[in-house]
Parts: sequence; structure tokens; C-alpha cells
Amino acid sequence: MIQSKETGKWIGMHPIEGGGVTSAPGFKAAGIHAGFRKQPERLDMAIVEADELCVAAGVFTQNVFCAAPVTLCREHLGPGSAGTARAVVINSGVANAATGPRGLDDARQMAALTADAVGCATEDVLVASTGVIGQFLPMDKFAALPALHAAATAEGGHEAARAIMTTDTHPKECAFTFCQSKNPGAGAVFTVGGMAKGSGMIMPNMATMISVITTDFPLTPERAHEALVNAVNKSFNKVTVDGDTSTNDTCILLARSASTYDADTAKAGFDEFQVALDAVCQNLARQMAADGEGASKLVTVNVRGAATPEDADLAARTVANSPLVKTCIAGHDANWGRVAGALGRSGARFNQEDVDIDFMGMAVCRDGLAVGFDEDEALRRFEEPEIVIDCDLGAGSAETTVWTCDFTHEYISINGDYRS
Amino acid sequence: MIQSKETGKWIGMHPIEGGGVTSAPGFKAAGIHAGFRKQPERLDMAIVEADELCVAAGVFTQNVFCAAPVTLCREHLGPGSAGTARAVVINSGVANAATGPRGLDDARQMAALTADAVGCATEDVLVASTGVIGQFLPMDKFAALPALHAAATAEGGHEAARAIMTTDTHPKECAFTFCQSKNPGAGAVFTVGGMAKGSGMIMPNMATMISVITTDFPLTPERAHEALVNAVNKSFNKVTVDGDTSTNDTCILLARSASTYDADTAKAGFDEFQVALDAVCQNLARQMAADGEGASKLVTVNVRGAATPEDADLAARTVANSPLVKTCIAGHDANWGRVAGALGRSGARFNQEDVDIDFMGMAVCRDGLAVGFDEDEALRRFEEPEIVIDCDLGAGSAETTVWTCDFTHEYISINGDYRS
Repeated sequence: MIQSKETGKWIGMHPIEGGGVTSAPGFKAAGIHAGFRKQPERLDMAIVEADELCVAAGVFTQNVFCAAPVTLCREHLGPGSAGTARAVVINSGVANAATGPRGLDDARQMAALTADAVGCATEDVLVASTGVIGQFLPMDKFAALPALHAAATAEGGHEAARAIMTTDTHPKECAFTFCQSKNPGAGAVFTVGGMAKGSGMIMPNMATMISVITTDFPLTPERAHEALVNAVNKSFNKVTVDGDTSTNDTCILLARSASTYDADTAKAGFDEFQVALDAVCQNLARQMAADGEGASKLVTVNVRGAATPEDADLAARTVANSPLVKTCIAGHDANWGRVAGALGRSGARFNQEDVDIDFMGMAVCRDGLAVGFDEDEALRRFEEPEIVIDCDLGAGSAETTVWTCDFTHEYISINGDYRS
Repeated sequence: MIQSKETGKWIGMHPIEGGGVTSAPGFKAAGIHAGFRKQPERLDMAIVEADELCVAAGVFTQNVFCAAPVTLCREHLGPGSAGTARAVVINSGVANAATGPRGLDDARQMAALTADAVGCATEDVLVASTGVIGQFLPMDKFAALPALHAAATAEGGHEAARAIMTTDTHPKECAFTFCQSKNPGAGAVFTVGGMAKGSGMIMPNMATMISVITTDFPLTPERAHEALVNAVNKSFNKVTVDGDTSTNDTCILLARSASTYDADTAKAGFDEFQVALDAVCQNLARQMAADGEGASKLVTVNVRGAATPEDADLAARTVANSPLVKTCIAGHDANWGRVAGALGRSGARFNQEDVDIDFMGMAVCRDGLAVGFDEDEALRRFEEPEIVIDCDLGAGSAETTVWTCDFTHEYISINGDYRS
């Protein structure tokens, strides 16, 4: 049982051990090696499909350099990126970004070939690509699409999650069930599950965040999009590895309820669905931050006492993106002066004499002044896999949380080495 | 002879070999070991003073966490940070930041003791500190102030420049003479010189940028402040090592013309003075960027074709602060996709199909698409100590330049290691 931050209600929600994008009834998936990558053991193409047409919603990169698959998804989902879809196909290795009109034709072809394999309309296929920018998709590799479709099973979520990995060190999956508490339909149990690939950079180019989430909860396209935007703003949009957002960021929600849509149940259970969707997205987002390139730690930055939500976000983001803060965490150094400096330049409005800062629950700054603390105890707490920084600006009641990772030598190696 | 960007006029301006903060007539300086640092060989206190009261202007950090010496300088310079001063005293090792009311009393005492040594009013002393945040100044060390004043000579600028260094690997100084071309006073030669310490971080805390610039050109306090703001906006404010601005950033201009002020000459030569002041500030700013912590290269980011100056600044700053861009430069990787990604998320308005990007004069992206280039030639050009990235957004006529450095393993080591 967990409590809804929004409503304060206690609702029945439980994680599914080993759950993922195929935990919800009616979904299957697969991941295979199609040849986008040289290494034969490396899975590089994934499909997530439903046994019927789904309500679908998408949230995409805001980057002006927007990749062809993102343009095609917006086109297929239609106005408001809220429509229907039957399948999502994803390749890793080539991002199909900065590829112009030919890239868009390739994405269109990728969708058409998938539609043929699955047996649905091309408009009901969504596509995503991740990998090198400025290269064209090797279209012959999509000859493997029928085999990919044939391989799709209700247990295939794990292979799909592995097939979309780039510099991720492990697949990212999770799923929750929740029990609707309100009539009509009280007691009905629904599932929300998903997979994601991390916000790390792929050699030789940029980060791509891709996530596919599925559910059997009944939604209209508009409600699906509303719920997804809410969840993404509280999860994926609160993750930063290095402040660089990609050309391909894509998050898709498939709700398998087109044929069984029930307006009353949908209305009665929407709040609970939102909480479950938030939980899935935040779980995946934290996995993403913890697996940032070269990361040795998940870093959680909590900002309280901000004058406005915008100020809270500015402050938390500036601390989370500060290379000075991220390097001192890698160095196990409770260096609150760097946090103070980042808060001070963030643009958030506050008075320095009102600021409190804690590292791992240890007070290090009170009223903007240094507080003596036990360095040995601090070093001990820095051994934890998650580092928590709490900042209270003493300027209001707005708060937020941003997740990031530390900056290590490994980060420089991964991103600084020659292309080859 | 160089050309004024502002007026297009050719003016007589020449660098002074080995010039610095004491190149202008009437100024002297010194740097000594007063004991703020443990290592006896390390200079840690500097003074720059004039033989008469000077017009003085200051530009200071915008960080909400503003250090005590900055507060005192604003107080002594008065409204608009434009007033008079006789001497500037600077210590390194302790930043006197986040030290509350006691810190401000200490800064006041630091100024009073300097005034006694120099023989001027306390209000005519400006102070700056750089070093560890959250520690109080060891006031007994200022017993060395009479010795510091006694040591000041017209050749002392070099020691002063060394005494303000923190993690800088070398002192930063330069000076130019310029010949006023317009009547009245045509043919008169003036000097502008300065020193700076870098925008690198001092263990265990934050960056401090400090610069003192001197001139014998006649200025009113208002004109001095106007010229300094103009120059800083085109130089120090265009440098970014890691996007972290400090609690102590201070830039002071002393114009030794209080007793010899000549309104006509001041008016006739102001444009030329501005060009010379810009040259001094940009020279010091480039030295600062090139000496960023762990830096192996100076990185110059030029943005052209922006819709507005704000867009140009946003775009250039976002590229210059991108860890992905900075690491690929450390790795000698002409990775234009990362530059494109940074431009795309910068908030600057443009269409991706209008964007051109060059690395070291080599076209790597045209109309938003990849352009084949000679990787071997690219690697050769990456051997240069300065890496130039040119971006044309094709959205207007605004342009700017930002200087930064690459991100190396050394950066992580310097900023990640334990305090000790």
C-alpha cells in the first residue's frame, strides 16, 4: 500500500518481481540481433506489440535537432501526440538523426515493414532509433522484422529491454499492479509496466532516452497523454546526467483498452492509475540516473522551501548539473560550498542567510553558514550507492527532486576517447 | 594598429611586452607570503596601489551567496559601484565567504589595516579574498600589511599576479598602450594593464575570478564603470570553465586621473580607451579559459547568424558548457553531433536545416546534415592549443564568442579528490 502524493489517499499498489513492458495482459515483445551492430551477440532491434489496437500517447524531445523517428511518431499519433498504435519497433546502433528527408523516408519504411510483419496499418506503428547521429539506417537489416515479430512473447520484455541498450550497463524494467478502490469497478486490478534505456551517450554521439510503457487500464487518447505528461514531468524530466538532452528522446504509453473501454472505470480509477504510472516512470528514471555514463552513484537532489515550483526546479537542476558538485561526490567530499554556489547562481530567489544544506542527512550548512560535522562519518555515508543532498531555501513552500549521478574518470574516458 | 569593432576605426594600440597591472604610470604593486597558506614559498597577499587617489569602478559576482569582501567593495565604491580608491588588497587561501556578520567585520578590518599602512581613508581601500569558503580570515596575518606596502614597486605587478593565484598554473597579466587619434589631445599615449586569477576551483571549494585593471586615461567614475561593464560583458562574462560562478568574483578598474582629469581628452579618447580596455580584458579572459582546471586546450566557440544577441549568447554558452562537447575535445573527436545537440537544447531559435558547424575551419555539418571530412586532418588540427568551433544558426545576424576549456581526467582529479 502506498500513498498518493496528489490525493493523500492510500492505494493498493505492488511491484511485480521481474516485471517489465510485457507484464500487462495482452502485450508481447522481443529483442533480436538484426545487424545494426557489428557484435553478433549484441541485441539491436526490439518490438513491443499488443494483441489489439491500443490507445497510444507520446512525449518527445524538445531538441530543435529532432530525429526522423520522432517526427514520424508525432505524425502517426496525430494532434496532441495522442492516438492509437498496435506496435512500437526500436533499433539501436543508428539514431537516424540529422538525416534530412531521406531519414524520414527511412523511418516511414521502417514503420511500413513492421506493419506488414505485424498485420496492422502503418499509421499504427511507432518507431524509435538510438545510436550514431548523421548516419542513414541500413534498411536491409529490417529484413529481420518478420523474425522479430515471430519471436515476440509475453516473456519477451527482458530481451526487448536489452535490445534498446546503448551505453547502459544493464536493462531497465519495472512493473506495478494497482487495485482500483472506488466504484464502479472497485477491486479491479490493473498493471502498468515499462522499459527504458538510459540517458547516457552512445559513441560517438549523443544521449537518447527511450521508454515504452504499457497498461491494461482503460484510457482515452487524451487522458493517456495527460497522464503521461504528468508522469514524465515528475520522472524522466527530473533526470540529468550532464544537462545534454538528445535528438531522439521518446517516451510512449500504450493502453490496451481500445476494444474494452469503460468510461466509468476509467474515471473512477484515473487517480490511482496516475500514481502507478508515476511510480513506474520514477523507478525507471532513477535506474537511468544511477546508470549514467561512468556513474558510481545515484545522486538525489531535494530542494525545499522554494518561492515557486520554477525556482525549486531551477535550484535543483543547477545543483544536479554542476560539474563541481558531481566531481566532489565522486571524491566523497561533503563539499557544501559547491552546492551553495550552484544554488546561488541558479536564478532561484532566496537569501543566503536562510539556506540550510544537508549531505546524507548530516547538517553541513545552517542559515548560510558552515556547520561543523564529523568528516569520518561523512566519508562513511558516502559509501552508500545513493547520495542524497537536501537544500532548504527558506523562501517559500515549493519543492522538487532531481536525480543525477556523479562525474568520474570513467565519464571522461567514455566520452573523451577517439571514435573507433 | 588594430581596428575598433565598435567604430571600425583603426587605432594605434600596442601590447607591452611583460606588461601588467603596474604598466600604467603611477601604479605600484607587491605580492608576499603573509601566512594565509601553509607553504612558505607560496605568495598569498597582494596589493595594487596608486600614488594618488584614483577613480575606481567595480563589477562583482551575481551569486546570491555573495562573499564579505564583495559586500565591502560595493559599500566603499558607493552607488553604482563607481567611486574612488587608492589601493586594492587581496589575499588568497581563505575566501571569507559564507562567514556572516563576523566575515564582514573582518573585511572591514582588512581595509582599515591597509588604509593605515598606505596612509589613506579606509573607504578608499578595496579588498578581495579567494580560497576556502566557510572559514574565517586569520586576521593576525594582516600584520604583514606594512611590509606589503613597503615592498610595492612599479615592477611589483608580477609578484602581485602570482600572489592571487589559486589553482592557476601560471600568473595572468597583460598591458596595452594606445595613442589617442582625435583632438583635443591627439597623439597622447595612454596605458591600460591588468592581472587576473583564473576561473578554476580551489580545493575544497569554488572558483573565484579576481581581476584588477589600471590605467592613466582620464575617466569619471560613471564613465569608468560604463567602460568596465562593457569590457567585462565582452570578456570575463564570456568565459566558462564549468558554468559555476563564484561567491567572490571581483573585477576592479583604477583610473589614475583624479587630480589631472581633463574632460575634453576624456571625451575625445573614450572610444579608443574602450577598445584598449576590451583588449586587456579579453586577453586576460582567454588566459583564464586556457588555464581552466585540468584544461589541455583553450576552446573558442563562435556563434553567428543568431536571431538576437540573447540567442547567440544562449547558444554559445550551452555549447561551451556541454560536458559532452568538452570531453570530445579532450578526446580529439570532431563530434559535431554533440554541438548540434547543445545548440538544439539551448533555447536559441533556429531551424535545424539552416545550421552550419565547422571544427577548426573544417566543415563538418551543412544545412543540419553531416558533411564528410578528413578524420586524419581533423586529428592533426586537434593538436593545436586552441580549438575553434564555428556555428552559424542561419536565423539572423547576431553573433558572439565564448571561451572555455576541455574536460580532462585532470579536471576530475583536481575536483574529485578528498580534501586534505
